[in-house]
Amino acid sequence: MRSALEDDVLARIRPGPEEHARLSDTAAELVAAVDRSGKARGMVVGSVARDTWISGDRDLDIFMLFDPSLPRETLEADGLSLGRSIAKGFGGTWREKYAEHPYINAQIRDLDVDLVPCYAVADATRIQSAVDRTPFHTRYISARIGDLTGDVLLLKQFAKCGGVYGSDQMTAGFSGYLCELLVIHYGGFSPLLSAAAGWRPGTLIDIGGHRSRDFPEPLIVVDPVDPGRNVAASLSVSQMFGFVELSRGYLESPSPLFFEPGDSHVFSREDLARVLSARGTSLHAIGFPTPPYIEDIVVPQLRKSLDAIGALLARNGFVVNRADCIMLPDRCTLLFELLNEETPDVVRHRGPPLWTRENAEKFFRKYVPPPGSLYSGPFIENGCYCVEIRRKYTNAGDLLGSPEVAGVALGKHVKPVLASGRTLDSGEACWNSGIAAFLGRFFRAASPLARIRERESRTDSP
Amino acid sequence: MRSALEDDVLARIRPGPEEHARLSDTAAELVAAVDRSGKARGMVVGSVARDTWISGDRDLDIFMLFDPSLPRETLEADGLSLGRSIAKGFGGTWREKYAEHPYINAQIRDLDVDLVPCYAVADATRIQSAVDRTPFHTRYISARIGDLTGDVLLLKQFAKCGGVYGSDQMTAGFSGYLCELLVIHYGGFSPLLSAAAGWRPGTLIDIGGHRSRDFPEPLIVVDPVDPGRNVAASLSVSQMFGFVELSRGYLESPSPLFFEPGDSHVFSREDLARVLSARGTSLHAIGFPTPPYIEDIVVPQLRKSLDAIGALLARNGFVVNRADCIMLPDRCTLLFELLNEETPDVVRHRGPPLWTRENAEKFFRKYVPPPGSLYSGPFIENGCYCVEIRRKYTNAGDLLGSPEVAGVALGKHVKPVLASGRTLDSGEACWNSGIAAFLGRFFRAASPLARIRERESRTDSP
Repeated sequence: MRSALEDDVLARIRPGPEEHARLSDTAAELVAAVDRSGKARGMVVGSVARDTWISGDRDLDIFMLFDPSLPRETLEADGLSLGRSIAKGFGGTWREKYAEHPYINAQIRDLDVDLVPCYAVADATRIQSAVDRTPFHTRYISARIGDLTGDVLLLKQFAKCGGVYGSDQMTAGFSGYLCELLVIHYGGFSPLLSAAAGWRPGTLIDIGGHRSRDFPEPLIVVDPVDPGRNVAASLSVSQMFGFVELSRGYLESPSPLFFEPGDSHVFSREDLARVLSARGTSLHAIGFPTPPYIEDIVVPQLRKSLDAIGALLARNGFVVNRADCIMLPDRCTLLFELLNEETPDVVRHRGPPLWTRENAEKFFRKYVPPPGSLYSGPFIENGCYCVEIRRKYTNAGDLLGSPEVAGVALGKHVKPVLASGRTLDSGEACWNSGIAAFLGRFFRAASPLARIRERESRTDSP
Repeated sequence: MRSALEDDVLARIRPGPEEHARLSDTAAELVAAVDRSGKARGMVVGSVARDTWISGDRDLDIFMLFDPSLPRETLEADGLSLGRSIAKGFGGTWREKYAEHPYINAQIRDLDVDLVPCYAVADATRIQSAVDRTPFHTRYISARIGDLTGDVLLLKQFAKCGGVYGSDQMTAGFSGYLCELLVIHYGGFSPLLSAAAGWRPGTLIDIGGHRSRDFPEPLIVVDPVDPGRNVAASLSVSQMFGFVELSRGYLESPSPLFFEPGDSHVFSREDLARVLSARGTSLHAIGFPTPPYIEDIVVPQLRKSLDAIGALLARNGFVVNRADCIMLPDRCTLLFELLNEETPDVVRHRGPPLWTRENAEKFFRKYVPPPGSLYSGPFIENGCYCVEIRRKYTNAGDLLGSPEVAGVALGKHVKPVLASGRTLDSGEACWNSGIAAFLGRFFRAASPLARIRERESRTDSP
């Protein structure tokens, strides 16, 4: 049922016996080390546990399951200390990292190993933090994956190269666990693609047949180990349909490009200048130091800030064509492309309806025009007062450089860094090497399938 | 109960005995002439019949009441012929005019006399055309006006000088009959103003207590001679509240200016240039010959055209700040003030959602970008396709000068004249002496009270 093309891809991406043995052996040794400590039980989770890792992946997830009666603080302290001693025992380097609670990230034998403490709860619905659920996922998938591991590998590679793999905030795509569930549910890579081609918002997959509530998301895959959780909760409607589009495109005309990562264009300062002049728009980039929190916390705040500053621009007569944000390790950027850089002096100011007498009379007294005014009003429009006044900012750059920006609803951690130390660049001066790739994606925005077709046309042409 | 100020005003505007006798005598002679013809019965209607005309008014309305069993054609032919012979008999000049049906407008002894044929129906609810109702109005008011004629005169002068008198399409204000009913209902000029100060949309006055249906208008004054008719149907919400505002302003600080017509400003070409430069906006005027129909037919079509062209501008990326129209005897003008005269090359074009597979695939195939395109797309936004394309018109003047204008939903009679013979002026070239007053009102838009306060401040200052 697999095509020759898919067999070729699989042969390339499935780890060979040597790679397989090396990873499995190290994983087993690490688990044994956790067990030997007597403090917790070790367990391999993630793609290594399920034989669904792609050749070349270097990520290994080892969970350390502690007694659920331990206080949280003890779990965190013991977990970190055990993780550190294991990393040390294997001759690795390590650092502490933080998600819902702290864990150890170590470099061991050329692998990126996460040593994560969690509670060994009896039932996935009684977890104390999100990581406690992971062992249940591993057990569920391991028991059912059977000979579908190849199909999972194909799907992950397909989703990755299409730009829809990853459940982080920036990507808002498909997680590894979601890929595994989908392959199991539909019985393989090809049947999944055929089904996905016809997906609609609200598609519901309830493998366990035990859904306990409604979900608002466009794709609902009820977690078979937790009836109140949607595994696809972080998948955006656009990424969901990016996958739908890829499925349709691949079914219509399969090509190896669907399984090959795209070459990342270089987007130079000259490219930016050329694009801006062709578009006739204006561009502003607000930059500031990245707040010291994880992406899942910062990125939603960047989006919120983007919306709030976009609304500020709109209120002041500037039309936002597109806007986007990026969080890089050191610096965040909010990017605004505007249809107009200047707006006229005059602005209408709507007042109250005349039947709210007190408000109306107050408005009238406030806006009696100065003698010789060249603006209109107060006049009556649809029964409401209206007056024309002089705009405070007629230039978008002036507004974005003003203190007004710090006064809108920015995210909690974004507000201080943006208020105290932001930069504002405009036009082609927005370009710097750090955000060149981001600018390239912004100005060459394309759906996953459009990117692949574009690569095909470049490959076909002489 | 009348103030000294109001007594002074009344002494000025109430016709003296000589003027009164002259008008009444001529009216009586005209009625007698109709009666003598044996074809119809004569009747004085309008303000002369009710003693509510303002000194200096030259309008006299004589109705010729025909047998309701006559066919419409006979009524029209006989009505015109009788009107002509009467005008001739009085040594006047005359012409035919058309409302719902034709009538004679004559100049007789320095008066503007309308000789209007109608049916002498038995009951106002069984009229055959709107004019048949007028005699009932006259009888109703004459029987009840008593000693309130002075209050009606004050109200008419107040409404006229405030710019809210007249039920024609351009004014959308208060008719004479409406003024009379309001004075009768509230028992005088002052009590009416006190009540009006608190009016809200949906205010209902049903003098006859016989309303037979709901009315959508903001002020509802049920016709005492017809339960299914709102006498205030043509009053706009803005003019209604213009009157409300004047009432509040007059009650708070009365002044003779409320009863004096405003001096009409001269608005010169230099004024226009100065205003446009202060506002930073752009201005376009579309002009064309006035279609040969009455104002009540043409003006709604001008408004419709204004909306349709405004929507065309908005669709093409131009922001309309204000727009207005005017119908003059020879020429009509549609005026558009824009916040932007230019708009960027790039425009977003929204496509279908990806879950409508056939449409989505069609859209994708249609908008595959040409190689080297500097625009984005097709990309996915909220699950829908979106693509950026090049705008057809980036200059508002180019768009307004293009054939697109004739393609939008213009009024039936406006369409041919606008399509075949329109002119387009821009900036200060929009000015010509014919529309100078209209431009002045447009750029010095002010509520009725704001105009009076402005005149007060000019009177007060040295």
